[in-house]
Amino acid sequence: MAGDNGFTLWFTGLSGSGKTTITNQLVKELRKREIPLEVLDGDIVRENLSKGLGFSKEDRDTNIRRIAFVANLLSRHGVPVITAAISPYREIRDEAREMMDGRFIEAYVKASIETCEERDVKGLYAKARAGEIKEFTGVSDPYEPPEDPELVIDTESQTPEESAQQILTYLAQRGLIPAG
Amino acid sequence: MAGDNGFTLWFTGLSGSGKTTITNQLVKELRKREIPLEVLDGDIVRENLSKGLGFSKEDRDTNIRRIAFVANLLSRHGVPVITAAISPYREIRDEAREMMDGRFIEAYVKASIETCEERDVKGLYAKARAGEIKEFTGVSDPYEPPEDPELVIDTESQTPEESAQQILTYLAQRGLIPAG
Repeated sequence: MAGDNGFTLWFTGLSGSGKTTITNQLVKELRKREIPLEVLDGDIVRENLSKGLGFSKEDRDTNIRRIAFVANLLSRHGVPVITAAISPYREIRDEAREMMDGRFIEAYVKASIETCEERDVKGLYAKARAGEIKEFTGVSDPYEPPEDPELVIDTESQTPEESAQQILTYLAQRGLIPAG
Repeated sequence: MAGDNGFTLWFTGLSGSGKTTITNQLVKELRKREIPLEVLDGDIVRENLSKGLGFSKEDRDTNIRRIAFVANLLSRHGVPVITAAISPYREIRDEAREMMDGRFIEAYVKASIETCEERDVKGLYAKARAGEIKEFTGVSDPYEPPEDPELVIDTESQTPEESAQQILTYLAQRGLIPAG
């Protein structure tokens, strides 16, 4: 059952910055507190709403707009939503912000391209460098960091647990989840 | 704010059968009762989730699956959803039913093709007959009526107000909205 505290926690960051890891950690913590939520992960959305779209600027924009459309529907009915797509373009994130008004919380998951490439959890950077993946964000495609995000999550200096805690503290301070 | 009575009222029927008219009437009645809800109208979804899709069987199926995906997300968090797309194919509606389990309420908006064509509110049948619209449901594309829908709304024998009342009575009987 949803409450009246709908919000969209919108992660943005490079591949390998830690969006999924932090999302998983956060989901665990929110479930423990019995807070309902919906996760709109980049892959889930590409499978269910955006099959057939590629990675050109136009297709990426369309994909992100669809995520925002669904996040808006859910959050305006009181459902907390976490989105975890790279969402590289500032303009489209700002569109999402405007659509969701005060319910939009931008969380910049920050790690340098060098760190992300070193982690290379999915082996994608290696493929991108080898030219096997075209239009790879940070390598052959732009990433525009947020200018004034609600949260900056520095995954070079803190653990996923610390990052999740930082977010929980913020949400509690905003009155969006119960304190403690 | 959403409650714990999420459901998806899934209208299906020919163009001109009365899906939109009944939806509007129903929305009015539900708003009067302060029941939150979300309407996923065929046009809204094509604009926001399915731009670029056409009207081949494959594209129609994809469009309906996207509507079902979003209706499922909303209704499982307690939000009442009304969908009002033609949704001509039984198999895909049954997929939606399975996904949403007991939350799926199929409402067959029933009017003969002759009646719908006579109404021809949007002038689409005339265009379809003239060959200006290809793949038009009921004329040059199939419509598969439900075999065992929860509701049959006969718009040839009753007014939109009566149809809305029929649905409200059903929802109240199921305990999905307050009685009276």
